[in-house]
Amino acid sequence: MKIYGDLNSGNCLKVKWVCEALRIPYQWIAVDTLSGESRTPQFLALNAAGQVPVVVFEDGRALAQSNAIIRYLARRSDLVPADDFLAAKMDEWLFWEQYSHEPSIAVCRFMMVYLGKPRSDLDPDKVKRGYAALARMERRLAESRFLVGDGVTLADVALLAYTRVAHEGGFDLTDYGAVRRWIEDSEAALGLSR
Amino acid sequence: MKIYGDLNSGNCLKVKWVCEALRIPYQWIAVDTLSGESRTPQFLALNAAGQVPVVVFEDGRALAQSNAIIRYLARRSDLVPADDFLAAKMDEWLFWEQYSHEPSIAVCRFMMVYLGKPRSDLDPDKVKRGYAALARMERRLAESRFLVGDGVTLADVALLAYTRVAHEGGFDLTDYGAVRRWIEDSEAALGLSR
Repeated sequence: MKIYGDLNSGNCLKVKWVCEALRIPYQWIAVDTLSGESRTPQFLALNAAGQVPVVVFEDGRALAQSNAIIRYLARRSDLVPADDFLAAKMDEWLFWEQYSHEPSIAVCRFMMVYLGKPRSDLDPDKVKRGYAALARMERRLAESRFLVGDGVTLADVALLAYTRVAHEGGFDLTDYGAVRRWIEDSEAALGLSR
Repeated sequence: MKIYGDLNSGNCLKVKWVCEALRIPYQWIAVDTLSGESRTPQFLALNAAGQVPVVVFEDGRALAQSNAIIRYLARRSDLVPADDFLAAKMDEWLFWEQYSHEPSIAVCRFMMVYLGKPRSDLDPDKVKRGYAALARMERRLAESRFLVGDGVTLADVALLAYTRVAHEGGFDLTDYGAVRRWIEDSEAALGLSR
């Protein structure tokens, strides 16, 4: 299996982490999105949305959207709850991540890390939404070690991707103690080194 | 099962359509999001994200995020492909819908239908992204009757919700013949009247 991705992208790292946690062999193919490598005809044939990550299997079939990829790779593993309702609660976090977390926190980080903008150039609305997302996580993680059930799941993988680097987007996690504790616990459970 | 929703919201209609297609009994509880009914302490206890739809089962457990809800309700039905890879391609569309379609097309419609703004007040970037999403659908649907596989799936349910009312957000579907054909086919397959 080939993973087309960018190691600075949290969405791409989700796929890498799941492969490593589940010992799925892969070949990493670096794609430089800033220089247009995700907009070439060859790349668009793999993912018409022109986004990384994309995985391509041995038979040539391609799959895009980070959370769809990890859900497929981790099906029937311990990273997806066996109970249908808990798996649905995991999906609730996966969709929330892409709608209410990534578009603010990852986009602020993109502005600062990829485009080199100062924090003062960030969209105040995105900063506000980012802190609202962190506050929701803080409330949940103050009462639960992981986001869903008793062990680490794809919900933690997906939210970890950009929360652990939120400071690179100008977010201050000082007042988010439960989130910081959860970052360490999730990294340990997934076997990630910081 | 209770569905907390707003009949003008495509995200809420997805849940209603799946229940009707699969003959799942439900009680509809209207929530007026504009007047703050989705921000009360009682509502936030059901969904800390303060969004509709939310479903609450007989045992009191609650589930949010439209695409997570329909994925749960339709598990093991014909609306989810039995083949794991096709189900993953369906998930790819579900995540794409929430990241690249809903935030532009549904938000433009919200501005015009809920807030009464004229088309000239729409964010040009959202209009551009909305047409890019429609163009991607047009290319796919020019070659395939439905988005995934041979029959209607949750991918069609999710994309239908705001595509069928895209004109209410100022989008002109005249040049999107395959999309218009697919709207009719999907509505028929799901038993919806226009």
